[in-house]
Amino acid sequence: MSELTRRNIVAGVAAGAAATALSPFATAIPARAAAPAAGKQTAGWYRYKLGDYEITVVTDGVNKIAKLPDNFVVNAPKEQVDAALKAAFLPAGALDIPYSPVVINTGSKLIVMDTGTGQANFANSKGVAGQFHSNLAAAGIDAKAVDMVIISHYHQDHINGLVMADGSLGFPNAEILVPAAEHKYWLDDGEMSRAPAGRMEGLFKNNRRVFSGDVAKRVKTYEAGKEIAPGITSVASPGHTPGHTSYVVSSGSKTLFVQADVTNVPFLFVRNPGWHAFFDQDAKLAEETRRKIYDMLATDKTMVQGFHYPFPAVAFVEKSGAGYREVMVPWNPTI
Amino acid sequence: MSELTRRNIVAGVAAGAAATALSPFATAIPARAAAPAAGKQTAGWYRYKLGDYEITVVTDGVNKIAKLPDNFVVNAPKEQVDAALKAAFLPAGALDIPYSPVVINTGSKLIVMDTGTGQANFANSKGVAGQFHSNLAAAGIDAKAVDMVIISHYHQDHINGLVMADGSLGFPNAEILVPAAEHKYWLDDGEMSRAPAGRMEGLFKNNRRVFSGDVAKRVKTYEAGKEIAPGITSVASPGHTPGHTSYVVSSGSKTLFVQADVTNVPFLFVRNPGWHAFFDQDAKLAEETRRKIYDMLATDKTMVQGFHYPFPAVAFVEKSGAGYREVMVPWNPTI
Repeated sequence: MSELTRRNIVAGVAAGAAATALSPFATAIPARAAAPAAGKQTAGWYRYKLGDYEITVVTDGVNKIAKLPDNFVVNAPKEQVDAALKAAFLPAGALDIPYSPVVINTGSKLIVMDTGTGQANFANSKGVAGQFHSNLAAAGIDAKAVDMVIISHYHQDHINGLVMADGSLGFPNAEILVPAAEHKYWLDDGEMSRAPAGRMEGLFKNNRRVFSGDVAKRVKTYEAGKEIAPGITSVASPGHTPGHTSYVVSSGSKTLFVQADVTNVPFLFVRNPGWHAFFDQDAKLAEETRRKIYDMLATDKTMVQGFHYPFPAVAFVEKSGAGYREVMVPWNPTI
Repeated sequence: MSELTRRNIVAGVAAGAAATALSPFATAIPARAAAPAAGKQTAGWYRYKLGDYEITVVTDGVNKIAKLPDNFVVNAPKEQVDAALKAAFLPAGALDIPYSPVVINTGSKLIVMDTGTGQANFANSKGVAGQFHSNLAAAGIDAKAVDMVIISHYHQDHINGLVMADGSLGFPNAEILVPAAEHKYWLDDGEMSRAPAGRMEGLFKNNRRVFSGDVAKRVKTYEAGKEIAPGITSVASPGHTPGHTSYVVSSGSKTLFVQADVTNVPFLFVRNPGWHAFFDQDAKLAEETRRKIYDMLATDKTMVQGFHYPFPAVAFVEKSGAGYREVMVPWNPTI
């Protein structure tokens, strides 16, 4: 009974001999056809209470990067990045970047924070991303009931869900709150004219596509450091983009920090706050922001929603080595 | 833009002044009734591939212990246990113990491993536990299609789901594989006559209730170190109970260790493998088993399903301090 050794675990697997002892009272079971594999994941949503508020995390899926560019972390050699991935028990040289928008019901307002990559990406990615609208419906939330969409910054995975594949509004009855600095930057013709070809040019074009027509009519800009909705305060967290914004959400005695993209995936950038992700526009400023915010999160033991954390993307932050480490909040099967 | 300090985050929250600047193109949004809170958690199931096998983790919910007994960890003072809970950002003096059975579709067999606490506990706990059968249905798995139930040991949270509230079979077409040593121990009249009143007496009685009638007719006993189903090998892991058993599941190049109750919640007993949980019948032997298995899991980087890990309860194990630490596998929104 107590003879467990590594050797006999392995030997047991290798043996492969089915030698089940039949107990005296066993009866024969009729043979039946094998159940087919289901092949389908559950709809990705998860709900919790924050004081009187109800938070629903609704995954948009992941960005599956089969071959990670060597410069994905701009200021760390590929070998160190691969080592960090392996330390997280993940394959080296590849990366799944999750998208985790949240929905907040304050009791008086139904608010979506960032919108995922949009329906077009659902088709493009063969359902791996662009799931936000279908998972929202699975969570029992009607997009038409959304009062407000709050946008953290103007990258595709945060804004493209504002518009459906047919060009209609993703949230037809919602006002769209956007950071004033972000809106000004991306819609400024001078800034666009100075943008290098490639990724930055693409971002300018996409932002002008999304923030036109009906979306533009719904837009309201907000400043940092303001209560922009009941219990939701904007916090400037620039660097990733010029007007990148995070949020403090408070209800009763509870507080949540919705970081947006202060870090990308935690197992790389929470552990190594000095690492600069390829996506950070002003990497030095982004690092400064990241270090300040993670110092605060760890010191104050503030709960954080990370847009690029693994679903359901809610965690606390502890100090660890020269950086930090996320401690995921245990899944609660009720709310 | 770069003036983020801890002071102004807090000040921002305190300010509470709604001062949203209206952009020139904003239009009025019609006032609407607030969406009601949903108040409902998603059905707790999660699916992944292990080689050719399809694994579905199906939560039975949690055991919500509002006041943790002082001797919950038999050989550590309450203060140390509270400190470990606080280090995991959990409330001191209380504990949620999750139940995470798994279902394995090998392509030829549909197998349930441990059954949760049963329908009676769903009513008793007001839906906090006893969710296995309803979540199984939500996962699209028909209990009647299950070919085999494998039981790790004879505690209520692992076996009570074998019988429905009306006394009928939980899995009417399945054979029920049980550890020979476990079955012999709990059905032995001499062992029962020597059991102290209270918890142990209750276990003997419950085991005789469950393993009677139709369940008894379906039972087949198995030995440790055998392939008891295609790719599933039993591994003796005694201590928690006399015949407690774990499993190595292998398909293609992939391996999963289904530990059952080698540890209870990871943030206490994976971090501190020397701690003895109240539930461990032979605590010294359980610790010996735990240390051997966690040494193996960490050294071999073997993926583990932990019955009392937070849903979806699949992780890797790293060495950490004088013990180990679980690294949860990131949620995959597809399979």
